This record gives sequence, structure tokens and C-alpha cells, in this order.
Amino acid sequence: MPLSVGPKGTRDFFPEDMALQQFIFSSWEKNSRRYGFEPYEGPAFEHLDLYTKKSGAEIEEQLYFFKDKKGRDLALRPEMTPTLARMVASRGNNLRLPLRWYSIPRLFRYEKMQKGRLREFFQLNMDIIGIAEESADAELIAAAIDMMRVLGFTAKDFKVRIASRTLLDELFILCGCAKEQCCKLYSLLDRKGKASPEDFHRSLSAVITERNVLCKIEKILDSQTLDDISRCGGTLPSLKTLQSLFETIDLYGFSEYAVFDIGIVRGLAYYTGIVFEIFDSTKSMRAVAGGGRYDNLIEHYGGPSLPAAGFAVGDVVLAELMKEKGINPSPTGRSFCFINVLEGTDPREVITVAQGLRTAGVSCEFSLKKSSLNKQMKIANAARSPYVLFIGGEESSQGMVKMKNMSTGEEMLVPRDEITNKMAGLFSHHQL
Amino acid sequence: MPLSVGPKGTRDFFPEDMALQQFIFSSWEKNSRRYGFEPYEGPAFEHLDLYTKKSGAEIEEQLYFFKDKKGRDLALRPEMTPTLARMVASRGNNLRLPLRWYSIPRLFRYEKMQKGRLREFFQLNMDIIGIAEESADAELIAAAIDMMRVLGFTAKDFKVRIASRTLLDELFILCGCAKEQCCKLYSLLDRKGKASPEDFHRSLSAVITERNVLCKIEKILDSQTLDDISRCGGTLPSLKTLQSLFETIDLYGFSEYAVFDIGIVRGLAYYTGIVFEIFDSTKSMRAVAGGGRYDNLIEHYGGPSLPAAGFAVGDVVLAELMKEKGINPSPTGRSFCFINVLEGTDPREVITVAQGLRTAGVSCEFSLKKSSLNKQMKIANAARSPYVLFIGGEESSQGMVKMKNMSTGEEMLVPRDEITNKMAGLFSHHQL
Repeated sequence: MPLSVGPKGTRDFFPEDMALQQFIFSSWEKNSRRYGFEPYEGPAFEHLDLYTKKSGAEIEEQLYFFKDKKGRDLALRPEMTPTLARMVASRGNNLRLPLRWYSIPRLFRYEKMQKGRLREFFQLNMDIIGIAEESADAELIAAAIDMMRVLGFTAKDFKVRIASRTLLDELFILCGCAKEQCCKLYSLLDRKGKASPEDFHRSLSAVITERNVLCKIEKILDSQTLDDISRCGGTLPSLKTLQSLFETIDLYGFSEYAVFDIGIVRGLAYYTGIVFEIFDSTKSMRAVAGGGRYDNLIEHYGGPSLPAAGFAVGDVVLAELMKEKGINPSPTGRSFCFINVLEGTDPREVITVAQGLRTAGVSCEFSLKKSSLNKQMKIANAARSPYVLFIGGEESSQGMVKMKNMSTGEEMLVPRDEITNKMAGLFSHHQL
Repeated sequence: MPLSVGPKGTRDFFPEDMALQQFIFSSWEKNSRRYGFEPYEGPAFEHLDLYTKKSGAEIEEQLYFFKDKKGRDLALRPEMTPTLARMVASRGNNLRLPLRWYSIPRLFRYEKMQKGRLREFFQLNMDIIGIAEESADAELIAAAIDMMRVLGFTAKDFKVRIASRTLLDELFILCGCAKEQCCKLYSLLDRKGKASPEDFHRSLSAVITERNVLCKIEKILDSQTLDDISRCGGTLPSLKTLQSLFETIDLYGFSEYAVFDIGIVRGLAYYTGIVFEIFDSTKSMRAVAGGGRYDNLIEHYGGPSLPAAGFAVGDVVLAELMKEKGINPSPTGRSFCFINVLEGTDPREVITVAQGLRTAGVSCEFSLKKSSLNKQMKIANAARSPYVLFIGGEESSQGMVKMKNMSTGEEMLVPRDEITNKMAGLFSHHQL
């Protein structure tokens, strides 16, 4: 294994890669904040128990786990929700509800590598705890849609596909399914996208052996809209909830982004009600985001019984989709202002100007070794500095600093004691 | 092991803990940026080799390491420098020098828990690669000092203690030490602070058996200033370098923050020249930050031979010191604006106002379930919102929104179509 390469499935972020990463993170943060969510964080590894005690078996297979030097079983966190549930449970009834929490954890899953899938990645998690009403699901879906909009996506680029586990339950029971068949149907449905229609029909008939039940189930699974559903089970309470959810999303002005999709069940076992996933419009990629209601989880971790809902969005698929749609944040320069020093200049003068600029918050650098103007300009170019100052020479002895705008080529002389204010003004304008 | 507790040596950051954490991180980032440094990041785990091939043995004992499912030996990163060196080495000569890079990695060390020491923590790393001159060391020391200043520390609170490995080498040789004795002297010196003067003398005499050499060495180790040193070895090249470093720090205006301390050697084996540590003024705690020159490391990892210097500062000791000095960032509210809804109000109206505010970037929330004004005010208080809007009732039917400033108690009526602008103005003022 050559030492120059990091472990499989991980990434090195060179400064030129950080522009996109920081654009994603700052968009996530900005959007979470404006929806009134507060940040939280937890450990990058947890007691293995935290994951194995929960039923989502697919997660277990993907864990990086190990023993520490005292023999404790630990695992790198594959998702944030167990940590969130543990933290909420640990405070018992001492938290003032509802909670609106977000986090941007680094996560780890030992998975087969494929497009949009790495073994180390980041997620935005947003959760609302303490609200049983579908208004919380609507608020989360609205926040997820706005998160995509902040990143530059439009209604042509993506859709939120929404369904309800309880609605499926009620429909299956209505069709005459037994309780234990429902679970099997979920896992079938979860893998539906990966199977051919024939294979899916075959697997379905293996679970549902009575012909007329099968027939009803297939009709339900073919539903394209909530109206289709209401024809089979118009009075089901979960249908009312889902209808109200879509009405609320409409109040947010986001109906063009949201569609009903009966096939969304979410692989993880802990969801209890409304579930949703964000896909690119053509569904050519894995889900960009996913979430839903998990009303039993916090109690499961020893906390009080609290209604909860949330979603997560990963950075890897998102970055792929941004690339595909041509969304590219412009890379920022390393320093806003590069100070070029003419030969024979007193170093005191250079450092004084630099520290003045830095104190005013202006990002600034100068060559740390004596070099020709030519070489200094090369460093300034590598640093992508939009402005270069020239200190020394005749202008300096007259108390002036030459300032060059690197994009227009324009040059001007600025009095030495005005340079900080001048650059600070240009810098704050540039930041907007 | 109760599930409500995370692994030993890790932290849960509840929203109220995040204010301090985010203040530290944003100060680190702001300061790095204004010094013209660019961000980079790497994997949270690396191939075990990356750490074991380097000589710093104390790090090995502290590693969390494990095998992945293919039997690869991996380790959670205990420090960032090996990843930095690997990344730089992997690009060979294709990087445009000098590099000014910073990162804020999450790190892991299996250490005995004590004050200021956890098993999972964060660091700021700042490095300059490609400059052999002490101007780079001065720039880094200035950046470290300014980082402390941004956080609110003064020259009364901390000192940068500076020494030089090459100077020590040259002095030891000058005194008549053999090369192999130098290494032993380093490790003695590194633990000097933990030993009594008598124990230190005893250990020293065990390494240096010739009486007159021992005498000279003890005199050197008693040096308090560079002038003391120049009396023993006035012409040593490293002394000139160190003198020039202090002169440059003076040009930055930071001489009150910097002192010479012959006892600083830095435990890690890879340092080659100037080394420094930041301590609180009374040296009552572990070092807050440490760094120095490591000119051989990148070549050691298979890259080109490149001069390099850098430092790291950890969040744990820093937060302890902030607490001790009474530096407390004021916690921000969860939402800037809480919308209170009077009974019987059309939900469309509430969501429209909320989405208008959010689109303008104003952090805002409203109650997600119908509750009394009293209950809503309780949520607004929990959210520490500085402003509360009241929607509904008589004012609403006249096209007005009542706005309450929660700190002054002042109330005013604002026309509905002006509320977004009004709040956005207050919000941007609040953010400054």
C-alpha cells in the first residue's frame, strides 16, 4: 500500500476541493439556521450496542467496529440518529420541547464502493422532537426543499417523494393481509426499484398467496396519486394525515417539488409514519436525502416517549448531482491581497501594512523570502489574489502604495495611511 | 454500560455547548483566513503505517487502531501532520509553493483522562510549506498569537515559549557532548517540568558523566534569555536565526507575547529547528498549542525534500483556559424571530410570513401545534428569540403585525408587507 494514498473510500480535500465542500456545508448551516434549528454534535464513535440494539440490520453489516485498549466494543458512527436519540434520552424530561436540532456529522460505512457511495462521508441531519402533528413533517420537508434551492437546484432538478408507513399498514390490512405479511411487503417494496417487474410480481405472489388479496395489493402499489388511494381507502386516518401534509406543503409554496410515491418505505426499521426521499428528477441516482417520522426511537433508547421526525442528506450524491447540473461555486482566492515588496524595502514597512490589513479582517499575505518582483507575482497568481499591493521604491518614499486590481489590470496610488480602509472597503464588498 | 452515555473521553455537544465550540472554530477560521491560509481536510482514519513508520513512539501507544473487513490495518488519526505530509508528498512537485494551509481536524488519542485531555478532540493546524527561512516561523508564531487574541486573550494571559532544536544541538556539541547523548538530553528535557530539580540533576548526571561537560550543560539549561546563551556560544548560526526570529516577532508588534525558553523541545521526534509552545502565563496547565519546523518529514513520506513548519492548538485546553479567564461567548438564540399565532388565524398567513422572513435569511420559527398564546410564549423563551411577532386578531385584519422586542418589552405595529424588510434590517444589525 503506497503511503501517498488514504484508505479506500475516503477522500483527501485539497484546498481546491474545499470550495465545493464549504459551499455545501455553509448552505446546510445557513438553511438550518433560518428555519430556527440549533446545532448539536456527538462522538465520532459510539458503544457498539447503540447500533446493534436497534433493529436496522443493514447498518450492522456496514459498521467499522473495534475494541479499545480496555476491551470496550466501539463502532464508528454510520448515522447520527442513534446519537441524537441517546442524547435526548439522557436528558429525560429536562429538555424544553419542541427541539429543532441540526448537525453536520462525519459518518462511516463499510460499503461496496459505487457512484455516490463512499466509506467516509458527511451528512446534514435536521430533526424536530416533540411534535406529533404532520406540521413537523411539513416543516422538515420544506426545510429539505429549501436546502436544495439554496444549493442552486430548481423544481426541474429534483423531487421530494413522499409516502406513509402507517398508510401502507392500513391499506395492507384493509386488503386482508396478516400483520406478519406487512413486514415482508416492506422489504420487498424497499428493493422494488432494483428488481424487474416480473421478479417483483413473483416475489409478491410468494408472500401473498391468496389471489384476491394479491390483486388488491398490486392495484394499491400501482397508485400514482393520493386520489388513486382514496378510491380504495378513502376514510383511512393516515390518508387524511397525508392529504393534510400535501396541503401544508402547498402553503409553503412548494407543491411543485413534492410528489406522492407509494414505493418509498425507507430501509431502516425505525420509521413509524410519513417517510420521504429526495431524488433527482430522472431518478438516475441514489436518493439524495431521506427521512421520516420515528415516534418510538427515543423511548427505545431509554428516554421518555417522544414523537420525532427528521431527515438526512449526504454530501457525496449531492456533489455528484451538482456536478451533473453544472452547479459550481466559484473558488475563492487564498488571500484577498498579496503584498509585493520591492528590493531594498524595510521589512518593518511590509509587516506593518500586512498586520494593519489583517487586524481589519482583510485576508493578506506577502512573500516570506526575498524574491524578484516576477517571482512574487507568480505567488500572487497562485494565491488567486484579486488585489496586489507594491511596497517600496519611489512611491513608498512619497508615502504612497501602488494598488493593482488583478482582474481589470487597473493601477492606482493610495496614501499609506489610507490603504487599510481602502482594502477593507473592497474586501467587505467582495464578501457580499 | 448505560446507553445514555457516550464512550469514555468523548463529548456530547448539546446546543448550549455549541456556542463556545462554534466561537472557537469560527475564530480559528477567521484568523487563518486573514493570514492568507487555505483550508484542507483528510480522512478521519488512515493506514496504520502512516503513523508507525514515523518515529514518534508516544503516538503509537495512544492509537485507536483496527482492521477493516478486508484485514487492512487502519488507525483513527491522532494528529494531522502525517496526513498533511502524505497529501503534499502525493502531489510531488506539482504544488505551487509556498503552501499556506490550515485545517480543523477531529482527532483521537487513547490517553489517560485528565484536565485538558480527552480521547476525542479538535485542533487547528496551520502550516507553511516551502519556506526554509525563519520568516515562516515568525509568520506562524504571529498567527498563533493573533488566534489567541481573537479569542479574547491578552498578553497577561499567555506566552509563546520559543526555543530551537538546532541551537540545543549546537550548544550540546560545543559543551563536548557526543551525538548520541543529545537524544537522551532531549527526552530528559522534555520531562523536566514533571521532575523535581534534584531528580532532574540526578538523571542528567547519569547521561553526562564528565564533570566539566555536566557543569557547562547545567549552566546552559539555566539560561533565561538569548543574551545568556550568546555568552556561551555567541557565534552559533542557530543563535543568529533565533535572534532574527525574535526581531521579526517584534516587527509584528508581538514581542510582549514571546519569550525564549530553552526547555521547550517538543516530545515528537520530527521537529528539526525552531520549536514553540503556548502556555498560560502561570504555566498551570498543559500547553495550549505547540509547533515548529519539520524540514525532513515530507521527504520521509516519499515526497520531495521541502522545508516546512507549522503548529497545532487543541480545543480542550483552550476551552478550559477561556473558562478560567472568564471568556464566554454569548449564546445566540435558536431563532431570531418567533411567530406567535392568535387563535383562529389562517395558517396560510403564518407560513407566508415565516417563509418571507426565511427567504430574506432571517432565522424564524412558529409553533407547529395549536397552542395557547401563553404556551407559545414559553417556546419563544426557550428559543431565546429576541423578537416575537403576533399574527392574527384585530391587528391582522387591519393588515398589521404586532412586533415585540423581548429584551426591552417594547411593542410596535408594522404593516404586513413591511415586516420582512423590518426584520431583515434588525437581523443583519444583530449579526454584526
